Amino acid sequence: MNKPQRKHQTAAILVIGNEILSGRTREANAHLAAEKLFERGCKLAEIAVVPDIGERIISTLNRLRADFDAVITSGGIGPTHDDITMESIARAFDVPLIEHRYVVQAMTEYYGKDGLNDGRRRMARVPQGAHLIRCAKSIAPGARLGNVYVLAGVPGIFASQLEAILDDFGGQAFQRREVEVCLPESSFAAALHRIQAQFPDVEVGSYPGTLGHKPCGKVCLNSQNIESLEAAEEAVRSMVEALHAGQKPA
Amino acid sequence: MNKPQRKHQTAAILVIGNEILSGRTREANAHLAAEKLFERGCKLAEIAVVPDIGERIISTLNRLRADFDAVITSGGIGPTHDDITMESIARAFDVPLIEHRYVVQAMTEYYGKDGLNDGRRRMARVPQGAHLIRCAKSIAPGARLGNVYVLAGVPGIFASQLEAILDDFGGQAFQRREVEVCLPESSFAAALHRIQAQFPDVEVGSYPGTLGHKPCGKVCLNSQNIESLEAAEEAVRSMVEALHAGQKPA
Repeated sequence: MNKPQRKHQTAAILVIGNEILSGRTREANAHLAAEKLFERGCKLAEIAVVPDIGERIISTLNRLRADFDAVITSGGIGPTHDDITMESIARAFDVPLIEHRYVVQAMTEYYGKDGLNDGRRRMARVPQGAHLIRCAKSIAPGARLGNVYVLAGVPGIFASQLEAILDDFGGQAFQRREVEVCLPESSFAAALHRIQAQFPDVEVGSYPGTLGHKPCGKVCLNSQNIESLEAAEEAVRSMVEALHAGQKPA
Repeated sequence: MNKPQRKHQTAAILVIGNEILSGRTREANAHLAAEKLFERGCKLAEIAVVPDIGERIISTLNRLRADFDAVITSGGIGPTHDDITMESIARAFDVPLIEHRYVVQAMTEYYGKDGLNDGRRRMARVPQGAHLIRCAKSIAPGARLGNVYVLAGVPGIFASQLEAILDDFGGQAFQRREVEVCLPESSFAAALHRIQAQFPDVEVGSYPGTLGHKPCGKVCLNSQNIESLEAAEEAVRSMVEALHAGQKPA
């Protein structure tokens, strides 16, 4: 696959599928991609889930591909009537949908000439100018057109295609540190706000939880700058010690 | 809580939280809401996940509340600096954020006068004109302003607040039928397309799967019209029988 010139620093994920919106299926691919992009150092800026409706796919895709470096789509590239992602991407880019000679050839070899029915031929269609995204898990490919990566919705195939494109994303990996804080959030909110202000290149989040009936949550620190990350972690640990010692944190 | 005049027929879910986009946390609330809205007969039209950034929350919220009957938000209403949902909603509606007298009173009773620190007071702030969404799981309330319902991100609290608002949504419940089809999707794609065309008020989806090495997926049918749903299910079952009998389906 041809590589884009510069690695993508920001990305959005566009999940296409009625089955998610009707509550039938719990979405899994966006979470996997979120983990992988974080490890690679690409900022995931939005996840959108839209139904199998061409206009909704096109308008959402056009918004996301204008706002962020890249978009990864999930779903809607199978052989049935509700699989309309490839044709929607083609319409969004205003290019024709073509039957890709290489894919037809690979499918003919795999299924035999009689096995290449209309449903399978449908999966050989990609927007003109697209680069194929191939993986070991499926003979039907994904595709990249400009900054849009079109992947399958079936989790095993999505994961395999994602591995095939991850080198296009990121730069400096994000790292995460977590500190358990068994105190009510309200008791350390002000001190934590000061730590956030002190370390602007660290993303400081607080996620409440309980241990039995006791408040016991996590302060979560994300950064691409390991020195800031370690200093911020130290500041949070000092804050917790001071609070447990009953002192007002600095 | 005051009720809107007419039940919402379409809705979007706006999840606010860096922890989802960084892959730290797998989102759970949107899936729960999707199931509940389906049961109530309200069409979930979009799920969006955005970071804890005021401008992103405001622009996404304004788009969704214009496009759909109602928006349910999840997350960002706790006491820490990264909890900026209430102030973002107020800015989106161009109203001030006020400390709600009732909530301050309830918190004072609950925590005692000395326990009502700044972090907790923060959770007493709602956009002016908002109706409180109260539930048994949290003293800090959610809020409804116009067609926007602001709920907590902690799953237990979200679920409890969701139950408190569901009567505002839906009408005729959606029902779902599934038919197992242990054949390659490509072998029945054309026949299934004809069934979709025959039953326009049934949403017909095909979701591939495997049983061992054999293809074994599900055809999923959703509708608010039980007669159409049953007729479509019967048509899918006949299609499968015909295919297994080696006949070309009608």
